[in-house]
Amino acid sequence: MKIAVLGTGTVGQTLAGKLSASRHEVTIGTRDPKATLARNKPDNMGNPPFSVWKEQHPAVGLDTLSGASAKAELIVNATSGGGSIEALTEAGEQNLNGKVLIDVSNPLDFSRGFPPSLSVSNTDSLAEQIQRRFPQARVVKALNTMTASLMLEPDKLAAGQHTVLVSGNDADAKATVTGLLKSYGWSDIIDLGDITTARGTEMYLPLWVRMFGALGNPMINIKVVR
Amino acid sequence: MKIAVLGTGTVGQTLAGKLSASRHEVTIGTRDPKATLARNKPDNMGNPPFSVWKEQHPAVGLDTLSGASAKAELIVNATSGGGSIEALTEAGEQNLNGKVLIDVSNPLDFSRGFPPSLSVSNTDSLAEQIQRRFPQARVVKALNTMTASLMLEPDKLAAGQHTVLVSGNDADAKATVTGLLKSYGWSDIIDLGDITTARGTEMYLPLWVRMFGALGNPMINIKVVR
Repeated sequence: MKIAVLGTGTVGQTLAGKLSASRHEVTIGTRDPKATLARNKPDNMGNPPFSVWKEQHPAVGLDTLSGASAKAELIVNATSGGGSIEALTEAGEQNLNGKVLIDVSNPLDFSRGFPPSLSVSNTDSLAEQIQRRFPQARVVKALNTMTASLMLEPDKLAAGQHTVLVSGNDADAKATVTGLLKSYGWSDIIDLGDITTARGTEMYLPLWVRMFGALGNPMINIKVVR
Repeated sequence: MKIAVLGTGTVGQTLAGKLSASRHEVTIGTRDPKATLARNKPDNMGNPPFSVWKEQHPAVGLDTLSGASAKAELIVNATSGGGSIEALTEAGEQNLNGKVLIDVSNPLDFSRGFPPSLSVSNTDSLAEQIQRRFPQARVVKALNTMTASLMLEPDKLAAGQHTVLVSGNDADAKATVTGLLKSYGWSDIIDLGDITTARGTEMYLPLWVRMFGALGNPMINIKVVR
């Protein structure tokens, strides 16, 4: 499948690398590809600059947000939550219309330091904001409840015996995403309902952050026991 | 142990009944005991009036909020989240001071219908509000992430293979609560940290509500897989 992964951070890199390794045709979208490649310093988490990762992943393309989105059949929003609406606007509404848009982002607000709060929550969610702004995109919230390296490699933790949650208004789009998740080993997938249920998975993040803090390890997830 | 359970709803009844059955000396606290016993209609969930439950549980005492709290060594806040501060104020600060106060409530706001939103969240929590209002009470947030019937009977689900989360500023109080939880069969207890971590467990409720809706069963909980 032709997939655009929007965002050049750890989440974007991890998803693009894994999708590409399983022979999807992946292009990463970024505001300014030249500037992205020109960065030569580690990010503030100490990760090497994007260009180093890109050299190690020659099959992954790099294009503008709109260029990557225009040619994609499926789009992954892996931009930071605070910049997602702006990035998707730059991707171009016409390039999103009718397409499955997997939103893995979280509206984390670090402006008051750590732990982050949410910039939207309770009676609204980032996923709903995206769906309202791009009514013809088929937004599916998924995978935002775990660290990037588990998203497409659930078997890295407890032999995959944990849960991924899916929200969205479009049943066919959710079926596409569910199929994709299954192809990466997910067996416990819960369809929570329409896109408003993304409030639940986004509001789970503050708990995730605290569990990460208490357990000292990001390789955690929840198994919904029932 | 002498325990006051504040609140006469399903949560209060369930906890009081279970604590009393294991030979704790339990008194339920309510604003007006006479009025509570005089109610003769089912509640809006169809549960029988409190007096029916009380007759079936003769070992459980009934007193005012302050009367129940005054003689208790440990207090459980099982009042509805929206009325918790008021109920605890009526219980009397002097009756809470120095005591372990287990807060199982959630600040659910049903004023816009179902699903509820939270009346406090994100940068504050009900547990923090309670701790600030009663600085000498030793508040421990726990058990608010599941349906009442699982709180002290974890074995009812998946042989108890799921998680309970604990938040609080006072290490000894958390040890008391952890010991109590273990005595009811809890084996996976995660201490999230200080009382601000209750933001996480309270903000999990909107997800719980959606999972309940999607799965059609309140007998659910999370296992934190790590």
